[in-house]
Amino acid sequence: MTYCVALKFDAGMVFASDTRTNAGVDNISRVDKMHVFANAGDRVIVALSAGNLSITQNALNQIERAARETPGAPNIYSVTSLYDAAELIGNTLREVRNRDGEYLRAQNIDASASFIVGGQVGVEEPRLFLVYSEGNFIEASGEAPFFQNGEIKYGKPVIDRVLRRDLPISDAIKLTLVSMDSTMRSNISVGLPLDVLVYPVNSLNANQRYRIEESDEYFRDLGKRWNDGLKQAFASVPAPPWDCLAPPAPMQPVASAENPNPAFDPNLAPPPQSLGS
Amino acid sequence: MTYCVALKFDAGMVFASDTRTNAGVDNISRVDKMHVFANAGDRVIVALSAGNLSITQNALNQIERAARETPGAPNIYSVTSLYDAAELIGNTLREVRNRDGEYLRAQNIDASASFIVGGQVGVEEPRLFLVYSEGNFIEASGEAPFFQNGEIKYGKPVIDRVLRRDLPISDAIKLTLVSMDSTMRSNISVGLPLDVLVYPVNSLNANQRYRIEESDEYFRDLGKRWNDGLKQAFASVPAPPWDCLAPPAPMQPVASAENPNPAFDPNLAPPPQSLGS
Repeated sequence: MTYCVALKFDAGMVFASDTRTNAGVDNISRVDKMHVFANAGDRVIVALSAGNLSITQNALNQIERAARETPGAPNIYSVTSLYDAAELIGNTLREVRNRDGEYLRAQNIDASASFIVGGQVGVEEPRLFLVYSEGNFIEASGEAPFFQNGEIKYGKPVIDRVLRRDLPISDAIKLTLVSMDSTMRSNISVGLPLDVLVYPVNSLNANQRYRIEESDEYFRDLGKRWNDGLKQAFASVPAPPWDCLAPPAPMQPVASAENPNPAFDPNLAPPPQSLGS
Repeated sequence: MTYCVALKFDAGMVFASDTRTNAGVDNISRVDKMHVFANAGDRVIVALSAGNLSITQNALNQIERAARETPGAPNIYSVTSLYDAAELIGNTLREVRNRDGEYLRAQNIDASASFIVGGQVGVEEPRLFLVYSEGNFIEASGEAPFFQNGEIKYGKPVIDRVLRRDLPISDAIKLTLVSMDSTMRSNISVGLPLDVLVYPVNSLNANQRYRIEESDEYFRDLGKRWNDGLKQAFASVPAPPWDCLAPPAPMQPVASAENPNPAFDPNLAPPPQSLGS
């Protein structure tokens, strides 16, 4: 499994991905799911991949090869818009799936694969796209745009609650890490180390990249504080003002191992009832 | 969509379900997803249903009918173990799916349906089962047993963190409601009102049943406090001690709408790079 997330906000973008891959629970290893096409001062294009690893790796390699071997043709380092970059990635994904998909399907292997594509190209504003497995794509919009990929649900609620346009970069980093922590806690197939790339708006530089290993003290502390904070949040909710929490009424006759047939007046018992429909 | 949850702990059990059903987004209505087979002093068997509504309703109705029309035969009001109740529900689910499944499949309609089955029968300890769509079933075990059904992921992390054997009943109610609140916030097709049944251990009585409507002040307050508490938990995490949060280094030449081709020394720029694999 995979969890990737990218947040976009006024001060920039934060990208994060886990690094766990598995072909069955007995074959787990680490791979990069964050691929950066960067040319300082000109462009930063980050692709976070999820799905079939051979499909995503092949697509990214073919994109790099095209830029290397036919530099004159439009390529990931020459496109003038992130829209074009997303289209290029989507088209390459289709080519690889066309090449390999039939052979994978014949073995009932899932060939689906997708990318979060974000960053900034030249004079364009930062943009964020999701390229689906079929090669079509959408752009994030609205007040607080973000995309997730892979095991998305566990890490989504905190983003829904916290992400705002005016989030400081440090809060956005925290938010991606809390979202990662929540996901890893509930899905063991998403795991450390994490790759994080922080992109300050208009920096056109991909040099703020971090890898969070098991030994990372900040991340461990974050997980513990978040856990403690959730428990405090839970404790801050008062008890329900419900009858059932009042002192109990006299007990019904209750069977027990010692007294399996307690005195019980069937005339006092209601008939078999169904309170639902 | 549906969200149902049942918690088991030393002091009893709490069951909760939403009531929203939909056949497409333009056809939404309310149904009971909590069905109670109860006979005070003798048994409380709660079935929380998810999946195809006609399948689950038919199965429950056939179980009620069997008890009514052939009271001498083993039925949901005569079985002496919750295990037998789960088996009865699983078998009835199979009968209904056998009867209707073929017609549904012919129209590409999903006939899957499942039940959480919990409660207490006679002298047995309280037990909790999950009856799968195929009619087979499993029992919850371990230190902090619970089952969810339907849209399970958004409401699971808080249960993972808070549920313990020695949870007081009031905390268990809070926990189911916070789990419901988290789910409803992230999946609009899970909605109010909620049905909640509180079962104190050995009470053998299903009379502590509550319906939470839109106007419920306690539930609204719970949602607000949980939201505020999460934000406080987030604020309690310190900022990452990362270089990128230090005062920025001198800016790279940055293109802008006013100056799309800033002075830029290509000898200073690194070659196109890929930091990933």
